[in-house]
Amino acid sequence: MSDTQGKIITCKAAVAWEAGKPVSIEEITVDPPQAGEVRIKVLYNALCHTDLFTLSGDDPEGDFPVVLGHEGGGVVESVGEGVTDVKVGDHVVPLYTAECRECKFCKSGKTNLCSAVRATQGKGVMPDGTKRFKCKGKELLHFMGCSTFSQYTVVSKYSVVAITDKAPLDKACLLGCGLTTGYGAATKTANVQEGDNTAIFGLGAVGLAVIQGCKVRKAKQIIAIDTNDGKEEWARSMGATDFINPTKLPEGKTIVDVLIEKTDGGCEHTFDCTGNVQVMRQALEACHKGWGVSTIIGVAAAGKEISTRPFQLVTGRKWQGSAFGGVKGRTELPGLVDDYLAGKLTVDDYVTHRVSLGEISKGFDYMHSGGCIRCVVDMWA
Amino acid sequence: MSDTQGKIITCKAAVAWEAGKPVSIEEITVDPPQAGEVRIKVLYNALCHTDLFTLSGDDPEGDFPVVLGHEGGGVVESVGEGVTDVKVGDHVVPLYTAECRECKFCKSGKTNLCSAVRATQGKGVMPDGTKRFKCKGKELLHFMGCSTFSQYTVVSKYSVVAITDKAPLDKACLLGCGLTTGYGAATKTANVQEGDNTAIFGLGAVGLAVIQGCKVRKAKQIIAIDTNDGKEEWARSMGATDFINPTKLPEGKTIVDVLIEKTDGGCEHTFDCTGNVQVMRQALEACHKGWGVSTIIGVAAAGKEISTRPFQLVTGRKWQGSAFGGVKGRTELPGLVDDYLAGKLTVDDYVTHRVSLGEISKGFDYMHSGGCIRCVVDMWA
Repeated sequence: MSDTQGKIITCKAAVAWEAGKPVSIEEITVDPPQAGEVRIKVLYNALCHTDLFTLSGDDPEGDFPVVLGHEGGGVVESVGEGVTDVKVGDHVVPLYTAECRECKFCKSGKTNLCSAVRATQGKGVMPDGTKRFKCKGKELLHFMGCSTFSQYTVVSKYSVVAITDKAPLDKACLLGCGLTTGYGAATKTANVQEGDNTAIFGLGAVGLAVIQGCKVRKAKQIIAIDTNDGKEEWARSMGATDFINPTKLPEGKTIVDVLIEKTDGGCEHTFDCTGNVQVMRQALEACHKGWGVSTIIGVAAAGKEISTRPFQLVTGRKWQGSAFGGVKGRTELPGLVDDYLAGKLTVDDYVTHRVSLGEISKGFDYMHSGGCIRCVVDMWA
Repeated sequence: MSDTQGKIITCKAAVAWEAGKPVSIEEITVDPPQAGEVRIKVLYNALCHTDLFTLSGDDPEGDFPVVLGHEGGGVVESVGEGVTDVKVGDHVVPLYTAECRECKFCKSGKTNLCSAVRATQGKGVMPDGTKRFKCKGKELLHFMGCSTFSQYTVVSKYSVVAITDKAPLDKACLLGCGLTTGYGAATKTANVQEGDNTAIFGLGAVGLAVIQGCKVRKAKQIIAIDTNDGKEEWARSMGATDFINPTKLPEGKTIVDVLIEKTDGGCEHTFDCTGNVQVMRQALEACHKGWGVSTIIGVAAAGKEISTRPFQLVTGRKWQGSAFGGVKGRTELPGLVDDYLAGKLTVDDYVTHRVSLGEISKGFDYMHSGGCIRCVVDMWA
């Protein structure tokens, strides 16, 4: 039992007071976990574009003040009543895609989208409708059921998974979002098969993880696409067989033309990891007639829509999406950690930058540079 | 051997001389089949909206003068060199979706879209690039590889299947397009499972056949949707459990709202049989989060596009299409004929109107009336 159990903890957090402003490092208080909740000492945190997107104010559903962060790793400090799956001292990864194992979705066997905490998570509160963070007399909202930009956070028991303590948390935290999202999209949602031709649009951490997923499935062509030539080396290091910069195509050719030629008819699988709806359309139309499947992973800006001629679908292409790689976090994340430790899943290489909590805004700046794949925040440095 | 073998045959046909004008009954000549071709004495023909669409001139790829028609039934009159699968006297159904069993598509095991005759079929010529019809000194184009609005027609050996002569051809001809398209979309492309909730938009012959497919798969709710109340009885006779007229919804509710409420979250499968791109969007958005699949069957007008927010796909809905119900004509159509003869697949009831070849324009008029499901043309009456 930790000596903080049952007590309010005062610690540091990066607080987002309002949209469009930098986060500021504050002392906040974190209430003890209530029934069905887990309080986590957060050790590491990787910065993700979703955090930036919400901070910018471009997400119409973003609300403030809030403690952002959702790609973290830490240790269980204490648990509330009725929590049996994790215990004090466990190494854990918070899950923005919960898994209750009891709702219609969890029981369906068809999806990883759990409905248990969805409504309250969307509102920035705990499942009982209240909050656990306070700063300067004000309550702070939770974010994506995680809020890992605090040295301590409280999450639902459905939103956390214990992993082996053999895995370094400054790397394993990446499995809390980007890596799992990309790798799972290829291996679970799309279920890429040996010999398939594949194309990946957008080579951030998610796109690079899709490449890894295609490689582990022994795809034939793994065509990596990005407007930044600097990504070619990254893509090839993860298993890409080809790289195309879509701003440098032969005259008169579109990226769709080039992909269809290169694959003799189109790809078995394409993946959008850009969030750009025009790219999503290209990804669909570069699929092979009769059976090609395009999987949307990127999150589009508010109000943006995808379009195509229905003929594209009637002639056998399929359009689908993937959230958190189709991975059920509590059940399947430990297996991904095992793959990482066994050397089957590259994780370490994604960490290109490191900052302390006090330097978190500098970390956000790094993310805008093409050379940054993931910036990890040491929450206690 | 028929006494016309190897000779040019003079017979009657409905010729479409130009877009937007009625077809006219003419004496035409039909050349003998060349290598790999089959000449068919067409006995019956069902009128399909695709024939009307092309005749109207709204199809930008439609070309004239042409012999339309693609939902026919007849008897093999003679065959060209190298034709072994059908012989003189066989009862046959022409196939607008060919099956060569040798191309990349046929061999893939993933699609019924054969590429063997696609290019020439699209141009209105036989696979060798020439035509078999002449009228008043002019060559007439072929249509959809079938051209069954003639008392004799010539098709590729890949575009015809022999069926048992126990099946009346004035009914079996319906399996050449609409019925197979709908029934196959439900049972093959969508692969509806027992207990699924389903919704079908548009209750022409295709939509009614989708209902039959859902029923045979023991779907739970089979919700039939049409703006014409007269279709309710039709839908229920084919197995629909519910009927909704989307122009008569409770105030403030969309068809998507109503379907999601009625099915406690959305449908496992929806089908668009309207060709209206707004309806296609509704069909997608009425699918259950996490696993619902929407199948587009209807053919949209030229230039029309489907749209939705990518969030619809990222949260687990899939968008796909179906052509000829995913059915491989030469391999699978005989099985559907058997199902028809065994009473498992209703066909007879679809024939609401009958006309002679001379009255074919009257048949097109019938199709515009809501009470007409299929109008069969007796080519020799």
